[in-house]
Amino acid sequence: MADGSEAYLEVGSAGIVEKQFFTFADPPDKMRLESGALLGPITVAYETWGTLTPQKDNVVLVVHAFSGDSHAAGFYPDDADRTKPGWWDSMIGPGKGLDTNKYFVICANILGSCMGTTGPSSINPETGTPYALDFPMMTVGDMIETQKILLDHLGISSLHTVIGGSVGGMQVLEWCVRYPDMVRSAIPIATTMRHSALAIAFNEVARQAIMVDPSWNRGNYYNAKKPDLGLAVARMIGHVTYLSDEAMRRKFGRRLQNKDTFSYGFDVDFMVESYLRHQGSQFVKRFDANSVLYITKAADYFDLVDREPPMRSIRDIHGARIKFLVISYTSDWLYPTYQAKELIQTLKRADLDVSFCEIEADFGHDAFLIPDRRLGELVGGFLDGTPRH
Amino acid sequence: MADGSEAYLEVGSAGIVEKQFFTFADPPDKMRLESGALLGPITVAYETWGTLTPQKDNVVLVVHAFSGDSHAAGFYPDDADRTKPGWWDSMIGPGKGLDTNKYFVICANILGSCMGTTGPSSINPETGTPYALDFPMMTVGDMIETQKILLDHLGISSLHTVIGGSVGGMQVLEWCVRYPDMVRSAIPIATTMRHSALAIAFNEVARQAIMVDPSWNRGNYYNAKKPDLGLAVARMIGHVTYLSDEAMRRKFGRRLQNKDTFSYGFDVDFMVESYLRHQGSQFVKRFDANSVLYITKAADYFDLVDREPPMRSIRDIHGARIKFLVISYTSDWLYPTYQAKELIQTLKRADLDVSFCEIEADFGHDAFLIPDRRLGELVGGFLDGTPRH
Repeated sequence: MADGSEAYLEVGSAGIVEKQFFTFADPPDKMRLESGALLGPITVAYETWGTLTPQKDNVVLVVHAFSGDSHAAGFYPDDADRTKPGWWDSMIGPGKGLDTNKYFVICANILGSCMGTTGPSSINPETGTPYALDFPMMTVGDMIETQKILLDHLGISSLHTVIGGSVGGMQVLEWCVRYPDMVRSAIPIATTMRHSALAIAFNEVARQAIMVDPSWNRGNYYNAKKPDLGLAVARMIGHVTYLSDEAMRRKFGRRLQNKDTFSYGFDVDFMVESYLRHQGSQFVKRFDANSVLYITKAADYFDLVDREPPMRSIRDIHGARIKFLVISYTSDWLYPTYQAKELIQTLKRADLDVSFCEIEADFGHDAFLIPDRRLGELVGGFLDGTPRH
Repeated sequence: MADGSEAYLEVGSAGIVEKQFFTFADPPDKMRLESGALLGPITVAYETWGTLTPQKDNVVLVVHAFSGDSHAAGFYPDDADRTKPGWWDSMIGPGKGLDTNKYFVICANILGSCMGTTGPSSINPETGTPYALDFPMMTVGDMIETQKILLDHLGISSLHTVIGGSVGGMQVLEWCVRYPDMVRSAIPIATTMRHSALAIAFNEVARQAIMVDPSWNRGNYYNAKKPDLGLAVARMIGHVTYLSDEAMRRKFGRRLQNKDTFSYGFDVDFMVESYLRHQGSQFVKRFDANSVLYITKAADYFDLVDREPPMRSIRDIHGARIKFLVISYTSDWLYPTYQAKELIQTLKRADLDVSFCEIEADFGHDAFLIPDRRLGELVGGFLDGTPRH
């Protein structure tokens, strides 16, 4: 910034954070999901930064993307070398876009994931083994309901803002539709109000890559060889969609990996091949293949426009007192700016207070995860202008 | 057309055509490939339409894309029901863009393929079994050399035009670089002068999808279970890249397949999922997985800009008397218009005669394969204006 402030660069300034857990819906009082299925008990993993005011009016709910987790900022106590800051560390901390001197920031792992919140890899209490495909299909709406129950547990009844990108942005919008009176402002980033055919297509190919791996075994691999090969291919597909043509040109171009000439074989020739293989092989160490299936399907089902009553659609929040800041990125071709504009038109027709910013960036869909002071400044200014009451 | 001519709609007007074969490079006189490897014998499958003039000055060479074949137009004699016209039937025939009343049209299956020309599924004469991964890696340049030998065999020493899209467009450009004095005009469509990182990335993910299928077995599956599951996923990836966001919205949107509600499971919900699965399952019936590996790799290696001497680069055709018509499509995001423009700038700096047309179409990369009178009229007019000598 012009004044020399580089707060957004201070990695880990949000401090040491511990993952916490809250369990509810103990049988027989299971939770009814949107599909009608019952699920319980449900554990939600979450982390918090900053201090809750006595009035509990400074809550920022961060909702994460497809493969994210509750660890949005700072370091875990056991990360002695301080090498693994949270995934949005550039946005959360003192003086950052989500300023922990002002706000009490919460991030919870989504339902269906494998990072502490109940998902297909969790133990099914009825069998004593992981749910696998017996896990009921859950929706983005179900993710919001589990977050709502967590906030009730914490005694929080209003959100200064709810913010997130990609599948996180879908959760932002679903929050507004389900609990418009709880949300003072909402910041959906790099997202859409309904999943497009292109986005469904990429997700379906990723799911197929997992499901054709014989080790997937119809989801029953938890005590056996895992479908790492299929999962790696699925992640490679994802990574192509997260980048952009321009980002790849700049980052890799046609540069070769570790040699001067072509291999004339099927080993890695190009840096971009090496990058994708690396991303695939790293992902299988930390993520569960069945969680990929469930979460991508939840994203595909996401549609706030065409909904049958009694489900509320995005038009039904007409006149709600939510301030919206919609953010898109020029090079995002998974959820392109035209989809942000469709969202904005829908919100404006519902008489809502909407601001819009398209950020010029050539990183593709992943741009919202990359440290960029513009996003922090934009969000910080917007939140300062959002009344606390 | 305004005059009511609908010649481009007359399916099969190019007539009945038979696949022909020409074999050369019989051992010990094998052909030396760009990699330095030796290959032989080599059989090339080809088909022709129209009549060669006594002066042999009316030859149009059609070069096909990645999964194409020599059957570009008309019907095979055994296609009694006339259900399988060639892949560019809308372009080849009397009164069509490549008018068989005027031109002698040739299309040959590319080296490395599996549709009649020698490739990894062909029998290695040294072992009596299919080459599999013992097939030497071939390049786009090697494809051109086999076509050149076929033309020599047919007594043809000049081409009125060489035309093709996608990997076919790469062959068009490679023809101009290798044999500039043979080519009077060239029509590269929906292509690039060097494969981008994004295009390499998609190809690499497709290759990985095949190679992680246990049935691939390092390429040795010809007398066993084939890697159909991996190949189907690879084809699904390809099909996403061949379409466009807009094409998918129009063709599929979020429409459901065969039911009114979500399955809340991993069966097909959306029409686009069904489409992709169908494309994958159909492809495995007609194409060889190893050919996908070899041809995608040849495309990835394709680069007419950065070439070490003695290889000629595209700049080295400075002053050649080739008329170029470069065609791109607005919605092609595999080889976008900006890459066509880079090609045009390079050609113009080399003092070449270049015309350019960007066709407005929302079909994505595949647009050049879809019957469209604009392409036929454009090509027909351009060829009429190309001198025979």
